[in-house]
Amino acid sequence: MNNFSHFIPTRMFFGPGSLKELSTASLPGKRALIVISSGKSTRANGYLDRVQNLLTDNGVSSIVFDKICPNPIHKHVMEGAQLAREESCDFILGLGGGSSIDSAKSIAIMVNNPGDYWDYIHGGSGKGMEIPEPVLPIVAITTTAGTGTEADPWTVITHEERQEKIGFGNDDTFPTLSFIDPELMLSVPKDLTAYQGFDAFFHAAEGYIANIATPVSDAYALKSIELLAEYLPIAVADGQNLEARSQVALANTLSGMVESTSSCTSEHSLEHALSAYHPSLPHGAGLIMLSKAYFEYFAEVSSQRLMDMARVMGEAGSSPDDFITALMKMQERCAVADLKMSDYGITEAEIPSIAENARRTMGGLFGVDPAPMSDAEAIKILERSYR
Amino acid sequence: MNNFSHFIPTRMFFGPGSLKELSTASLPGKRALIVISSGKSTRANGYLDRVQNLLTDNGVSSIVFDKICPNPIHKHVMEGAQLAREESCDFILGLGGGSSIDSAKSIAIMVNNPGDYWDYIHGGSGKGMEIPEPVLPIVAITTTAGTGTEADPWTVITHEERQEKIGFGNDDTFPTLSFIDPELMLSVPKDLTAYQGFDAFFHAAEGYIANIATPVSDAYALKSIELLAEYLPIAVADGQNLEARSQVALANTLSGMVESTSSCTSEHSLEHALSAYHPSLPHGAGLIMLSKAYFEYFAEVSSQRLMDMARVMGEAGSSPDDFITALMKMQERCAVADLKMSDYGITEAEIPSIAENARRTMGGLFGVDPAPMSDAEAIKILERSYR
Repeated sequence: MNNFSHFIPTRMFFGPGSLKELSTASLPGKRALIVISSGKSTRANGYLDRVQNLLTDNGVSSIVFDKICPNPIHKHVMEGAQLAREESCDFILGLGGGSSIDSAKSIAIMVNNPGDYWDYIHGGSGKGMEIPEPVLPIVAITTTAGTGTEADPWTVITHEERQEKIGFGNDDTFPTLSFIDPELMLSVPKDLTAYQGFDAFFHAAEGYIANIATPVSDAYALKSIELLAEYLPIAVADGQNLEARSQVALANTLSGMVESTSSCTSEHSLEHALSAYHPSLPHGAGLIMLSKAYFEYFAEVSSQRLMDMARVMGEAGSSPDDFITALMKMQERCAVADLKMSDYGITEAEIPSIAENARRTMGGLFGVDPAPMSDAEAIKILERSYR
Repeated sequence: MNNFSHFIPTRMFFGPGSLKELSTASLPGKRALIVISSGKSTRANGYLDRVQNLLTDNGVSSIVFDKICPNPIHKHVMEGAQLAREESCDFILGLGGGSSIDSAKSIAIMVNNPGDYWDYIHGGSGKGMEIPEPVLPIVAITTTAGTGTEADPWTVITHEERQEKIGFGNDDTFPTLSFIDPELMLSVPKDLTAYQGFDAFFHAAEGYIANIATPVSDAYALKSIELLAEYLPIAVADGQNLEARSQVALANTLSGMVESTSSCTSEHSLEHALSAYHPSLPHGAGLIMLSKAYFEYFAEVSSQRLMDMARVMGEAGSSPDDFITALMKMQERCAVADLKMSDYGITEAEIPSIAENARRTMGGLFGVDPAPMSDAEAIKILERSYR
């Protein structure tokens, strides 16, 4: 047994209707910056009103920052932090999908800290400086089941001018409190339900093959994979199925706990590079397109782990190919087996620069792959995924 | 799916040799009260010297409180807290088994707080008052694999004058840091290895049948049960087997995580009453003697859960009886199938008062049983366990 550590300090409230706990939970401040997306759904679905009312019931005032893009950008981190300072907010509440919650984490870093967010980022053109001042407490209320960010410290922000999409996080960027209420997820459209569900799936699957996986992260990962294989197709087919939504939400939170205790591997670096060049590409869709070639690349070196995953997905698990079979079946059941990179404007000529960007901006994840992957091999995976 | 919350804020360092992280980890203070047992082993094995040296390397001074009994008592909580106050300690480090670490937690409560420890206890003659002042940070270094206390907030203390053995804990009594180094467990004698391992087993098994079990506590519990069924007999047979010790240690920590996310059931109330009357009875031995009759009582109402546990223990799991079979096989493999209450001075005449004490001092655990248990039924379980 290898040594490992375990640290997930977030208090999580889970289950249908659990959002109402926001009115009585011990909150980390008295004035919240509520970070939401620039889209209409958070208001239209009534989530913003509900959250503000529950905060009021709990004696907490709030203001709203509503500019976050689907791939959240550096500029909005800086703007959100300035607003929080001007408005004397003492905690940051992310309400929405991963983009809003990740932005909330990054804003929480910058409220009390000098300079530019990229000063503190590791990788790419980030300066990797230490963060001198306290990070504000973070509360996460998730309305999607995809990133697991409610149960991990990670935030992924794109520097829109430098075409760098980089993950960051530390002990202080774990949410203090997270609310995972599947009732808030009933309105997620079919395609996004699938993309986000597969994002969660790959957090678990990559975390299971990562060379830093632990027995505890393994338990989270296999449970997450099992639940997603069973329930994601149901949630995609019938978005109103609260039981399926609940199980997918739980799987997603478990995948966040995998992120906190193991790590994504280079599949995520490759996808982040794709989305950095093509911001219209949903992260989960990019991962789905990469996944077959990516896991086939590790079929030999991670054969036992692929067989384990195949088994909890309902296959015999007597060969690592069973995992590829299970993965493709799940993609078919979720109606995402036919995604093409060219549909998102990606050209084959870009592939070498995408591989280069992946290594330069999120090279660290290649270090937790179960075996080394050269640039040439990464290019081959991208090429096989493209065709 | 029922609603649940999840909160385990402890940072855990796990694995052979992980104790050395104590010299570099970020510690919660500069002066530690080290709480150890009144026995010789902590010094004789060199653990105390090692811990003090590692603390010194980390710039932390320490003093030692070495009075803790196998069933830790109220009096020593009050004495330890007074010593910590006199010596201006700013955190409490429990080094040893559950008794030392539980005492460290209770001492941490009393250093800054007025009155008597029993003022804050719920149950029995405890006054259930609120704790007005901050609890000192707690560090746990476990040298046994039995209580899971390194991964939960619970502390069980006996009031020696009132014959009450009562569990207590809150958010502030989670250890800040825990070190689970199986190398420190190699010297645990055969019988204690078995008793402690079964304590861990019942934390997981009771937590799995409890009516507040959650999908996450289930994942911890089944993994813990699986590991203990496989590795505890090996660790009992060959205490020097580091791999078996490591897997048992991990199982024990997982069972602590079950304690943090689900709960023990009334088996623990019954055993605590036995040990309150007969302090020479090891807690794990008491649980082993109760277990067959106890789980048989729930075989019908918890049949699916007993079958699940049987399966991860290597039985077919087609009937709840399979769990009883697996449990008895495991007890035989660990050489604890023939324990008798009478060997510890327990008489059959005491049984009604033991049942009454269990309900009075730790009645809350009856409330998380999978089905109600009357006093008469509890007496029957005790009688069947006695014979």
